Amino acid sequence: SQFIKAQDQASSKSSGLILTEEGLKKIKDNLGQVPLFDRSLQEIKDEVDIEINNGIEVPIPKDLAGGYTHERHKKNYSTAQKAGVLFNILGEEKYANYIKKMLLEYAAMYPKLPLHPEERSYARGKIFWQSLNDSNWLVSMSQAYSSIYNWISKEERATLENNLFKPFADFLSVESPQFFNRIHNHSTWGNAAVGMIGLVMNDEELVDLALYGLKEDNIDETARDNDGGLIKQKGQAAGFLANMEEAFSPSGYYTEGPYYQRYALYPFMLFAKALQNKKPELKIFEYKDGILVKSVYALINLTDADGEFFPLNDAQKGMSYFNNSVIMSVDAAYYYGEHNPMLLSIAKKQGEVTLDDAGLAVALGLKNKEEQEFLKESIILTDGSKGNKGGVAILHSKEDKSRYSLVMKYTSQGDSHGHYDKLSYSFYNDGEEVIQDYGFARFVNIEQKNGGGYLKENTSWAKQSIAHNTIIQNETSHFNGDFDTGTKFHSEKYFSDFSKPDVQIISAKENNAYPGTQMHRTMALINSDIFQKPVMIDIFRVTGAKENQYDLPFYYFGQIIETNFEYNSPEKLEKLGSKNGYQHLWKEAAGISSANNSKFTWSNNNKFYTLTNVTKEGDSLIMARLGASDPQFNLRRDPVYIWRKHKAKDAVFVSVLEPHGSYNPITELGNNSFSQIKEAKILIDNDEYTAVELIGFNKTKLLLVIANKNGEGRHSLRINNNEISWKGNYTIIEN
Amino acid sequence: SQFIKAQDQASSKSSGLILTEEGLKKIKDNLGQVPLFDRSLQEIKDEVDIEINNGIEVPIPKDLAGGYTHERHKKNYSTAQKAGVLFNILGEEKYANYIKKMLLEYAAMYPKLPLHPEERSYARGKIFWQSLNDSNWLVSMSQAYSSIYNWISKEERATLENNLFKPFADFLSVESPQFFNRIHNHSTWGNAAVGMIGLVMNDEELVDLALYGLKEDNIDETARDNDGGLIKQKGQAAGFLANMEEAFSPSGYYTEGPYYQRYALYPFMLFAKALQNKKPELKIFEYKDGILVKSVYALINLTDADGEFFPLNDAQKGMSYFNNSVIMSVDAAYYYGEHNPMLLSIAKKQGEVTLDDAGLAVALGLKNKEEQEFLKESIILTDGSKGNKGGVAILHSKEDKSRYSLVMKYTSQGDSHGHYDKLSYSFYNDGEEVIQDYGFARFVNIEQKNGGGYLKENTSWAKQSIAHNTIIQNETSHFNGDFDTGTKFHSEKYFSDFSKPDVQIISAKENNAYPGTQMHRTMALINSDIFQKPVMIDIFRVTGAKENQYDLPFYYFGQIIETNFEYNSPEKLEKLGSKNGYQHLWKEAAGISSANNSKFTWSNNNKFYTLTNVTKEGDSLIMARLGASDPQFNLRRDPVYIWRKHKAKDAVFVSVLEPHGSYNPITELGNNSFSQIKEAKILIDNDEYTAVELIGFNKTKLLLVIANKNGEGRHSLRINNNEISWKGNYTIIEN
Ligand SMILES: [Ca+2]
Ligand SMILES: [Ca+2]
Ligand SMILES: [Ca+2]
Ligand SMILES: [Mg+2]
Ligand SMILES: [Mg+2]
Ligand SMILES: [Mg+2]
Ligand SMILES: [Mg+2]
Repeated sequence: SQFIKAQDQASSKSSGLILTEEGLKKIKDNLGQVPLFDRSLQEIKDEVDIEINNGIEVPIPKDLAGGYTHERHKKNYSTAQKAGVLFNILGEEKYANYIKKMLLEYAAMYPKLPLHPEERSYARGKIFWQSLNDSNWLVSMSQAYSSIYNWISKEERATLENNLFKPFADFLSVESPQFFNRIHNHSTWGNAAVGMIGLVMNDEELVDLALYGLKEDNIDETARDNDGGLIKQKGQAAGFLANMEEAFSPSGYYTEGPYYQRYALYPFMLFAKALQNKKPELKIFEYKDGILVKSVYALINLTDADGEFFPLNDAQKGMSYFNNSVIMSVDAAYYYGEHNPMLLSIAKKQGEVTLDDAGLAVALGLKNKEEQEFLKESIILTDGSKGNKGGVAILHSKEDKSRYSLVMKYTSQGDSHGHYDKLSYSFYNDGEEVIQDYGFARFVNIEQKNGGGYLKENTSWAKQSIAHNTIIQNETSHFNGDFDTGTKFHSEKYFSDFSKPDVQIISAKENNAYPGTQMHRTMALINSDIFQKPVMIDIFRVTGAKENQYDLPFYYFGQIIETNFEYNSPEKLEKLGSKNGYQHLWKEAAGISSANNSKFTWSNNNKFYTLTNVTKEGDSLIMARLGASDPQFNLRRDPVYIWRKHKAKDAVFVSVLEPHGSYNPITELGNNSFSQIKEAKILIDNDEYTAVELIGFNKTKLLLVIANKNGEGRHSLRINNNEISWKGNYTIIEN
Repeated sequence: SQFIKAQDQASSKSSGLILTEEGLKKIKDNLGQVPLFDRSLQEIKDEVDIEINNGIEVPIPKDLAGGYTHERHKKNYSTAQKAGVLFNILGEEKYANYIKKMLLEYAAMYPKLPLHPEERSYARGKIFWQSLNDSNWLVSMSQAYSSIYNWISKEERATLENNLFKPFADFLSVESPQFFNRIHNHSTWGNAAVGMIGLVMNDEELVDLALYGLKEDNIDETARDNDGGLIKQKGQAAGFLANMEEAFSPSGYYTEGPYYQRYALYPFMLFAKALQNKKPELKIFEYKDGILVKSVYALINLTDADGEFFPLNDAQKGMSYFNNSVIMSVDAAYYYGEHNPMLLSIAKKQGEVTLDDAGLAVALGLKNKEEQEFLKESIILTDGSKGNKGGVAILHSKEDKSRYSLVMKYTSQGDSHGHYDKLSYSFYNDGEEVIQDYGFARFVNIEQKNGGGYLKENTSWAKQSIAHNTIIQNETSHFNGDFDTGTKFHSEKYFSDFSKPDVQIISAKENNAYPGTQMHRTMALINSDIFQKPVMIDIFRVTGAKENQYDLPFYYFGQIIETNFEYNSPEKLEKLGSKNGYQHLWKEAAGISSANNSKFTWSNNNKFYTLTNVTKEGDSLIMARLGASDPQFNLRRDPVYIWRKHKAKDAVFVSVLEPHGSYNPITELGNNSFSQIKEAKILIDNDEYTAVELIGFNKTKLLLVIANKNGEGRHSLRINNNEISWKGNYTIIEN
C-alpha cells in the first residue's frame, strides 16, 4: 500500500518533526493494546473524518475572532495537523490527500494576500487579524507538512515552499520584527512557527532566526503593543532561546501568570520536541537547568483542586490543566523528563494523550498502573528570569477531605498582562473560590463582546488595585496604575515557613507601590483547637509618610448571613468613587465600627465563613457590588466587603478568615453557622514586633508574633506579663 | 438472647407499627444479601452508635430552630426511631435500653413542662416552639416506642403512657384544636402523630380523633396562622382522611406546591403504612383512588433533571427527591402500589431504602436488576381536591442529550404558602434554571436569619407578582396581594396538546387577578428547522377595561451578551417602584424599543440564550436587579429583564426564548452565540385569533395560530394571502 511506501520513503530520509521513526514503530506495535492512546486516537479520527466529509474551505481572510473566516482557518490548521498524525499512524492516504489539497489551496491564495483587513493589531497577520494567529497556523501546518513531506512529489514540495511556507516564514520574521523579536509570548509563537517550518524544510537560516532572533530589527524604543506593553527594551536579546531564558523563573513560573503560561508553554514545548528530534545536540530539555519540565510542575501547582488555574493577572476563569496545551506539556514533561509517576495521575485525569512518542509513554505508564497522586505541597514560585523578582506563595492546609489554599502574590508587574495587585491573595476551599481574584474582563472568542478581545473594563477595572484583595491608598492604584513605573519594581519576600504541619506562613514587603509608604503583609494558614477548620490570619501593616485613606477589600461570594455592626442601606445607590476602578462599584451599605472586632459572616455553596477584623473605632465597613459605569454589562455583579481606615499614617489590618460549618438543603440541617472566635486582639504593634492573640469560645488562646525586621535572629519579648523568647521571624503559641 | 425473647413476645402480641412481623422475618432472612438494604442498615447503625456513645441529653426546652435545645430534641427523636429499627432487626439490647432510658427522661420532664417560652407561633408546642415540631417528635417516638413495646415491662409502659404519650397526644389534639383540626400540613402531622401513638397504645379513641378530627373545636372563623392563612373555613371537615381528601388533587398535586408536598407526604405516608399494618380493613392505600401512590408520581414529575423540585410557591431551592421523606414515599409507593419498576430507578439514585418491608422490597427489586428509567413525559397536574381548580403543566422537549422543560402554573392560590403568580412559568435546561422562579425568602434552620423562619422579604418580595415571570398590571400584585381574594379564585386551562413530538402546548386563562382584565397565556415548546435546539414560544394576551401599565419580567441568570436596542445606564441606581415588590428592584438600565423585535442575548453556565420580543415602538425594556430595600441582605442579587407596555388597554406580549450554542472555557471555543431568528411577527391578533410567524436566517418559516375562543371546532383564516384551515385550538405550519 501507499502507506508502506510512504514509510519506506520516510525511513530513507529523516525522522518526522514530532513523531520519530522509532516512536512511530512503537506506536504501531502497540495499536489496540494501550487504552488511553487508542481512545485518544479514535477521538481524533472521528473528528478528522467528519471534517474530511465536510470538505475543504479556504476562504479569503476577512473576520475577527469568532467570525467565519477566522474560525474556518483555525479549524483548517487544527484538522490538518491531526490528519497528518492519522496518516503517519494509520497509513490511510485520504488523510495525506486532504492535507495536500488544503495546503495547495493555501499556496494558491497566499502570494496575493494583502495584510488582513482588520487594522487593530500592532502586528497584523494575513490569514488572521494578528500575526499571533498566523503563527498558530504555521506551527500546526509545519507538523501537517512534515507528515506528508516524503509522500508528496518534489514538485509539490517546491510549490508549497516557494508560494506558501517560505514567504509565510519571512512575513512572520524579517517582515514583522515588532512581532518576532520580542521577549513575549507572541514572539515565542512566532519563533516556534518559523523554526518548525525551517526544520521541516531543512532551512538552517530560518532555524537560526527562530533560535536567536533577527540580528537587526530597528524597533522604536517607545513602541507599544495593543496591551500598552513595551515592544522591546534597548539591547534586549531575542529569539526562542532568549525567550526561554527570560520567560520563566528558575522555579518555572511565567511572569504573565498561569493563564498565559499555559498558552505560552505550547510553542515552547512543541518546538522543543521538534528540536529534540531534529537537533538533539542542542539538549533543549536541559536548557536553563531543565526549565521546560519545571514549568509544567509550576503550572500544575498553580491550579485549584479542580485543576483550574489561579487567575493571576489577565486570566479566564475555568481555564485548567485540561487544556490541550497542558495535556501536551504533561506528556512531554513525563517523557523528556524523569518519567515522574505523579505526572501520570494528571494525565489520567486529563483522559487524553498526544499521539506521539511522549503520549504513548504516558499511556503505557497508565496501562501499567504506575501513576502516583500528584501531591501539592505548600511552595514558593519565584518570579523573574533570575528568580530575584518576588514570587507567588501557595499555602495549603488540610482538614478532613478538604484542602484550604492561600495564593499570595508578591511578584513583579507581569508584563503587559500584569495587574496592579501587590501583596494581593486569593483563598480556596478545594475547587471553590472563597476570596476571589477577579481575573480578566474579556469573553475570549465571543464575537459580540469586542470580537472576543480585551474589553475596556479590563483596564478600567480588572487591572486596578481596588479589584484585588490588597491595600489601596487614597483610591489610587499601585504605581498610580502606570505600567512603566510598575515594571521597574517588584515586591520582596520577607520570610516563609512551611516546615510545621499546623502553620504555613508567608511574609512579603512592598515599598514602591505608593512612594513613601511601606507595605508589609504576613499571611498564615493555621490549624488550632479554637477552630473546626484551618483559618487564615492576615497581618497587613502599612507605614505611611503622611495621613492617607487605606482600603482593604475582601472579594467574597455568596450571601451575607450576619454582621456584628450597624450599617446604613441607602435609598439610592451611588458609585464608591470616580476613578481607578472605584467608579465600577455600587455602594450598597456602609457602617462605622464601634467594637474592637468587626465580624462579617456569609454563606456560599452551603458553607459558612466569618471574617473577624480587628477594627478601631471609626473605621468604615462598606458593602459594595460591581457593576457601575458598565454600560455593556461586561462585568460580573460580584460583591465585596471593604475595610476602610480614614486619615491614618501608619496602620495595621489584622483579619482572621474562618471557614466554618455547613448546610444541607436536602436535610435542611446546618451546623456551626457561628464564628468560633470570641476575640481577636493586637497585643503589640510597632516597627519591631506585631503580636496578635485569638481567643476561642472554647477558651483556647493562640498567640502569633511576627518580628517585623531583622527576623532571623533570637528574640525575647514581654507579652501579657509573660516573657517569651524564640529564634527566627515568628513564633506561635497555643494554650 | 434477649433479642429472641423480644421477638417471641412480639409474635405473641401484634405486629409492629411499621415493621411487620412477616417483614421482619424476611429482613432477617435476607440480611447480608441485599446490597442497598445492607448499606442503608449500616449507615443507620453507624449514626446511632455514635449517638449512643455521646450519651442521652434531654434539656429543658428553650431555643428556636437552629438553637441547642431545638436541635438536640430533633436529634433525639430521630435517633430513637432508628435505634428501634436496629433493635428489631439486629436484636441488640443496647438499642432498646437507649430508647427506654431516653423516653423515661422525657416522661420525667413532660408533666411539668409549660408551653415553650418562645411565643411567636399560633400553635406553640412544649418541647419545641411550635406544635408542628412536637408532632414530628411524636411521629418518630411512636415508632421508637412500638419497637420496644413488648420488650419493656408493663409498669414502664404505664409510666410512659400516663406521663408522656397520653398527655402529649391530648395536648396536640383536644388542647390545640387550632393546630389539629385544620386542612393543612400542620394538622396532617398532628393527626399522624396522635394516630400513630394511638395505634401503639391500642387507644381507639386517639385513632378516631386522628382519622376524623375533633368533633368540636370552637375555632374562631377569622383566626389566622403565622403565615396569614385562615385556620379553618366554616363547616370544613377535619382529621387525617379529610386532609387526604382535600390536600391532593386527583392527579396527586398538593396545592401548597412540591416543597411542602415533600414535607406533608411524610406523615401521610407513614401513618398510612401504620394503618395498613394495624387496620388493613381501612384499605388506606386505595383511598381516593390510590391518591397516596399517585402523589409520589406527581412529586417525581415535579423535579428537574437533578431531582430538585420546581420551586412553586414557598420553596427552598435545592430540596429534592433525595430528601428522606421522598425516599420513604418512593419505597412505599413501590411496595403498597404496583411494584412499578420505574420507581426502582429513582430509589437507585436515592441510594437508600427504609429499613422495613417496603425498603426490603425495593432493595430486592434493585438486586434483581428490575429497574426501568423513570420517563418524564409532558403532563398536566390538576389542582384542587376535585381537580377543578386549574393546575400545573410540565412540558418537555428533548434535543441530543438535553431536555428543555417548561413549568407553567395556573393553579389556585396554594393556601398560606401560595404566591401571587398566576400564569407564571419557569424554564429549565436539564437541571439548570434558565428562567427562574425565585422560591421563598428564608434560610431554614439558620438561626441568624430570623431563627430559620420566614423572612419579611418573603411577603414583601417572594410572594409578589413582580417576583414572577407573569404580567403585572399597574405595579400591583394579582388580587392586589390579598390572600382572601386570591383564595376565592383559580386560573383555568384553556387547552393543551402533548400528542405531537415537535409541539408541546399549553394555554390557560386568568380572569380574576385584576378585576376587568382578562389574561390569556399560550406557551409552546417547539422543535423547528429554524433552530438548533427547542424553543419556547409565549403568547400572552391581556384585555383590559381601561388603559394600564403592563410589565412582563424574565428572571434570567448570567451575563448579558448583547441587545439590539439602545439603553441608558444611570449614574445612580434608583428603586423600580415603591411597593408590591418593586421596592426591592434596582433599575440598572432602561431603553425604549424602536424595532419590531427587541433582542436580548445572555450567557449562563457556558450556554447562550436569546429572548426575541415582538415589541411595539415605545415599549420600555428594563434591566433591573434584586437587592433594594433589603437591609439584612436577605435577598439574592438576581437579575431581571422586564418588558413594559405603557398606557395599553389590550396588549399581546409575544416572546420567543431560544437556547442556542455553547462555550467551552478550556478550549475557549464558542459556537452559535447568535440568535437564529431573523424576524418574529404578529400577523393577526384579535379576539378570535392570534397568528405568530417566525422567520429563520435559514429562510424557514414557522406559523403558529391560536384560536382564542371556542377553539375546539373547525377554523379557516386568510393569512399572508393564503387560506388555511384546521380543526382545534391551534395549528402550526412550517415551510
Ligand atoms: Ca499592564
Ligand atoms: Ca474551581
Ligand atoms: Ca437543578
Ligand atoms: Mg497580549
Ligand atoms: Mg487580578
Ligand atoms: Mg405554613
Ligand atoms: Mg414563587
